[in-house]
Amino acid sequence: MSPNRSGELMSCDPLDELFEAARGGNRRTLGKLLTMAEKGGEPAAMVSEQAYRGAGQARVVGVTGAPGTGKSTITGQLVAAAGASRPAILAIDPSSPLTGGAILGDRIRMDSHVSSSAFIRSMATRGHAGGLAVAVPDAVRVLDAAGCDPIIVETVGVGQVEVSIAAAADTTVVVVTPGWGDAVQANKAGLLEVADIFVVNKADRPDARGARRDLELMLDLGHRGGWRAPIVLTTATEGEGIGDLWAEIERHTAHLHDSGELVRRRCRRRREEVADRVELSLRDQVDQMIHSELGQAALNRVDHQELSPAAAAELLLAELNPPQPL
Amino acid sequence: MSPNRSGELMSCDPLDELFEAARGGNRRTLGKLLTMAEKGGEPAAMVSEQAYRGAGQARVVGVTGAPGTGKSTITGQLVAAAGASRPAILAIDPSSPLTGGAILGDRIRMDSHVSSSAFIRSMATRGHAGGLAVAVPDAVRVLDAAGCDPIIVETVGVGQVEVSIAAAADTTVVVVTPGWGDAVQANKAGLLEVADIFVVNKADRPDARGARRDLELMLDLGHRGGWRAPIVLTTATEGEGIGDLWAEIERHTAHLHDSGELVRRRCRRRREEVADRVELSLRDQVDQMIHSELGQAALNRVDHQELSPAAAAELLLAELNPPQPL
Repeated sequence: MSPNRSGELMSCDPLDELFEAARGGNRRTLGKLLTMAEKGGEPAAMVSEQAYRGAGQARVVGVTGAPGTGKSTITGQLVAAAGASRPAILAIDPSSPLTGGAILGDRIRMDSHVSSSAFIRSMATRGHAGGLAVAVPDAVRVLDAAGCDPIIVETVGVGQVEVSIAAAADTTVVVVTPGWGDAVQANKAGLLEVADIFVVNKADRPDARGARRDLELMLDLGHRGGWRAPIVLTTATEGEGIGDLWAEIERHTAHLHDSGELVRRRCRRRREEVADRVELSLRDQVDQMIHSELGQAALNRVDHQELSPAAAAELLLAELNPPQPL
Repeated sequence: MSPNRSGELMSCDPLDELFEAARGGNRRTLGKLLTMAEKGGEPAAMVSEQAYRGAGQARVVGVTGAPGTGKSTITGQLVAAAGASRPAILAIDPSSPLTGGAILGDRIRMDSHVSSSAFIRSMATRGHAGGLAVAVPDAVRVLDAAGCDPIIVETVGVGQVEVSIAAAADTTVVVVTPGWGDAVQANKAGLLEVADIFVVNKADRPDARGARRDLELMLDLGHRGGWRAPIVLTTATEGEGIGDLWAEIERHTAHLHDSGELVRRRCRRRREEVADRVELSLRDQVDQMIHSELGQAALNRVDHQELSPAAAAELLLAELNPPQPL
């Protein structure tokens, strides 16, 4: 089977061929597979299933934290520090809830730090957060099956959605800055419990050591058995501390393997993904129902306050789940 | 109808009585109604429906922003600045995604600022974010029907979930701090588009004016017709700027009434709530399915990698939506 003149692969089993090409380092084909996986429908399901069979080898590192903490710079430099031949970055861009547009500022800033060998893919958080909970593991699996390693998933924000995406990595790095808040705030955002490694970035600021001390105190209080999240001070814009950070990631990777935690984590994630996928599908059904004639009629009655939102929801649910014949 | 010895109300139509007592200022009864609304099931549906009929008068103000920006202090002081006889605060506490526990630090800090007349209720973000999307409007409506005004909904975080909760208010106040990040970051979090008023808190910090300038620039770029979000500088710990902030909230309230925007916003929110309620109910069905014998069998096969998460989800969906007889 050989590429035709336009560079497209022709095959009786084109998906096998596409994965084969991606594994061989064809970035365009890898991008195509990711696009197929994102688009949904039957082709996405086939890509997902094929990737599932080929994945499981890559180290998956999540980098998360509040906006403005310097995650993108750290992510770019980590890729260089890893010294791997086929690193990948999956950047989850928040998009506006109103316009759906992704903002590219960080990508532009990041590119100057990233070695040209890295495969970079941005995903916008379009539509429902639930969509991302399915799209991210799918994309990670495609990258994994294509031989990328390590895969760094960068997410912005400290909301629960972001926390759950970060938790989908094998190793989760949580970035804070001295100005970002005290340890109580880090705890409030649920970060203490998903962090395998803390980074205090912008460590050249005066209160960096105070931030480290606060985090240490919180870690003393909420100790998890077997692994205590180390705290690495970095000044990412200067490249300081990035080598230490990568060393801690490697130490955590070894811990995951040695302790059996890697198997347990991945098992838990797969279970969560089943529920996420069922939910996403039901949500699509809801969207269709809302846009149906019946749905629009119910919403019109809600507009005129003839029907409460709760009563309208009950009407629609009765339609989605008709009583089964005995 | 009179209270019995234990202070409980007895009535043939107890819900009417409870709302009547809550309107009369009985805080214990108001708390009971809110608990009923939170617990779900048939009683919650009845409380929700009754509250729906009695609500619509209160000013609902959302206060949101990243952790550590001083929202709780501002919220407490706003209540005092409003000078209303029956203010209420609905504080959405983030809870850990793993333990489900709410952290009370802010409540303790806030209470010292809040006048004793305010009714304060905390809601934890337990379980799915979708639950909150229904629980918050329900709680606001109960407070509203009980005669509370203004109702200040304080949410922590800058994720999409928090943004959508903030968007459920009539007037949304977004709090940033000079150290929190530049205007690009505020925009990335989707805050620019939901903010009716910006607060730069901790305005005694050196770069407060820089933060204001960045926000002004962003507002210049993304102008929304009719209302330009004012930027108020506060030092909430000293009470500075809180009077200005309340004045801007009143100005926005007048704008909402005069422009017809209030009716449009509430109409849009009711429509969103219908979809949220349908989704929440379907999610419950998914949870039940996952915990059923069939669900557990499918998950076991996923554990042993005999089935991909996607294939397991398809199995469960087929069970939830059995093919309809012709």
